[in-house]
Amino acid sequence: MTTDYRFLKACRNEPVDVTPVWLMRQAGRYLSEYRSVRSKVSFLELCKSPELCTEVSIQPIDILGVDAAIMFSDILVPIEPMGMKLDFNPAPVFEKPIRSQADVDALRVIDPEADVPYVMETIKMLRRELEGRVPLIGFSGAPFTLISYMVEGGGSKSFMKLKGMMFNQPEVYRNLMEKVTETVIRYLKAQTAAGAQALQIFDTWGGILSPGDYLNFVLPYTMRVIQAVKTPEVPIINFVGNSQGIMPLVAQAGGDVIGVDWRIDMAEARRQVGKEKAVQGNLDPIALLANPAEIDKRVKEIIVAAGDTGHIFNLGHGIVPETPPDHVKALVDSVHKHGVSHRVK
Amino acid sequence: MTTDYRFLKACRNEPVDVTPVWLMRQAGRYLSEYRSVRSKVSFLELCKSPELCTEVSIQPIDILGVDAAIMFSDILVPIEPMGMKLDFNPAPVFEKPIRSQADVDALRVIDPEADVPYVMETIKMLRRELEGRVPLIGFSGAPFTLISYMVEGGGSKSFMKLKGMMFNQPEVYRNLMEKVTETVIRYLKAQTAAGAQALQIFDTWGGILSPGDYLNFVLPYTMRVIQAVKTPEVPIINFVGNSQGIMPLVAQAGGDVIGVDWRIDMAEARRQVGKEKAVQGNLDPIALLANPAEIDKRVKEIIVAAGDTGHIFNLGHGIVPETPPDHVKALVDSVHKHGVSHRVK
Repeated sequence: MTTDYRFLKACRNEPVDVTPVWLMRQAGRYLSEYRSVRSKVSFLELCKSPELCTEVSIQPIDILGVDAAIMFSDILVPIEPMGMKLDFNPAPVFEKPIRSQADVDALRVIDPEADVPYVMETIKMLRRELEGRVPLIGFSGAPFTLISYMVEGGGSKSFMKLKGMMFNQPEVYRNLMEKVTETVIRYLKAQTAAGAQALQIFDTWGGILSPGDYLNFVLPYTMRVIQAVKTPEVPIINFVGNSQGIMPLVAQAGGDVIGVDWRIDMAEARRQVGKEKAVQGNLDPIALLANPAEIDKRVKEIIVAAGDTGHIFNLGHGIVPETPPDHVKALVDSVHKHGVSHRVK
Repeated sequence: MTTDYRFLKACRNEPVDVTPVWLMRQAGRYLSEYRSVRSKVSFLELCKSPELCTEVSIQPIDILGVDAAIMFSDILVPIEPMGMKLDFNPAPVFEKPIRSQADVDALRVIDPEADVPYVMETIKMLRRELEGRVPLIGFSGAPFTLISYMVEGGGSKSFMKLKGMMFNQPEVYRNLMEKVTETVIRYLKAQTAAGAQALQIFDTWGGILSPGDYLNFVLPYTMRVIQAVKTPEVPIINFVGNSQGIMPLVAQAGGDVIGVDWRIDMAEARRQVGKEKAVQGNLDPIALLANPAEIDKRVKEIIVAAGDTGHIFNLGHGIVPETPPDHVKALVDSVHKHGVSHRVK
């Protein structure tokens, strides 16, 4: 099996022919082909169908020409079998959020092969379909982002319940983080076993905290996941949303690749992350609403700022549904046009 | 008239007896005394009554012992007389948002004394009431934050309409910013004339942009406001929300004091801002849900990190309504307890 994909080489900080690109939420509502699949089933039914997950995961490879596929799923999929009923309306909702030690005690750590077999089946199907084309990225939410939904009961603006637990019931918080961390470790190991060729950890909400709170309440758990899951073969991408105030801590938590939010200059992010790790990012997803000439200009700036090796082009966050697909295609073409400075000389 | 208030001295980077403290949204729903006033009138009626604005502005001085008052108002108050019907439900809503050059052309630059006389009257009443107690802060939204509501029609998660205008109709964007910048300049000058002793510019949404876009599309307008409004007597506080990735640019835009978000370490913020300006901040507002012992510990850490002079203690954003008032009082007491290291020796 080839490991010579430009995406995997960039993850390892090795020279590449062209800067690789994939996009967070590249399989999603902005694509009519996705909406067509999605119209037949509920969101959770889609997540639990290996055939349909495989189909929508491959769509952006065919349509856009990106350099990696990411398995289609939702970060909350492994939380449901921990014992929490999950709905999407369309935002995720847990009817009975975690608020006490008794709630934490009632949760179980999952056995991925038994509890979320459809995820492992999706990975196996995708590997068969994608072999020789592009590598496959598996993923999990980071423990902190996962418990933010479990404690808040859904999305939040100020994360009062979550921070309230952290500040006033730190033992309950840590016990909850322990259980979710163990679930995440098992979930990611199972993905590697099923054939994932890289793993991304999404800590979408890691950037809501002060640096001191991130260091104390989040970093140890992310670090433990990365330490437990890492292998020489499967690079790990550590993405934290809104992380521009905590980049050195995010790098300290670990990962071969550090995901970079758009609200920091890529050259500055590179400086803070250091030369040993690769970086991934960091176009403002809303910049995809701009015309292709403007997108092209921004792509070039980011590629120059990221430096010579170890850069995977991506957005600073996921594609929004209102994005014109032809702009996304233009972005991919721009990356492949400008990203030749790293060609092996 | 005294200018010897510790708040004003800290704004000027001069030694103080004790670190001064005030809190964004210190007059607000978390106080039962505020809710009692508010229950009798609509939010806009409250904003347009100098007597009631004066009453609620003084409440936190009496109850908490903070070192400065801020006039009670809403950042959108000067936008209504530009020609945009404003409602609160309870979030602000503009029924007819700005989407075209024709919409911009229909806006008028305000004459503050004629268009928002109640704001100037509030300032005069507050000065009479507060003389010899604490200084009075006036304020305005920054042009960028004001137009974010004008273009989006209200709050937003991804600011697609605003960024869409910026990227695809840059001339319309700049023409709108010009008109709002001129309104902000007149509004702040009128506040100084009415007696405001310091001015805060709230750029709540300045931190949604990449550094390059902030530099190009926001900084020139904030800088122009500060250049036009500044006087030797009235210090200017430049607060940008979520600014941890653009601190040097925020400092470059100007102001005697730079407001600091909680998502950056205060020592790092101080380093990026430089020693010449004062800093204001930066406790996570949700940390006020923690017990007073935990609040005390965090206050001390921030005071130590901020350094020897030129620090005004504040939150990194406004107080949330769920905050227990006795925790806020404990915070103020902690600042006054720990903030004695700057005592004139």
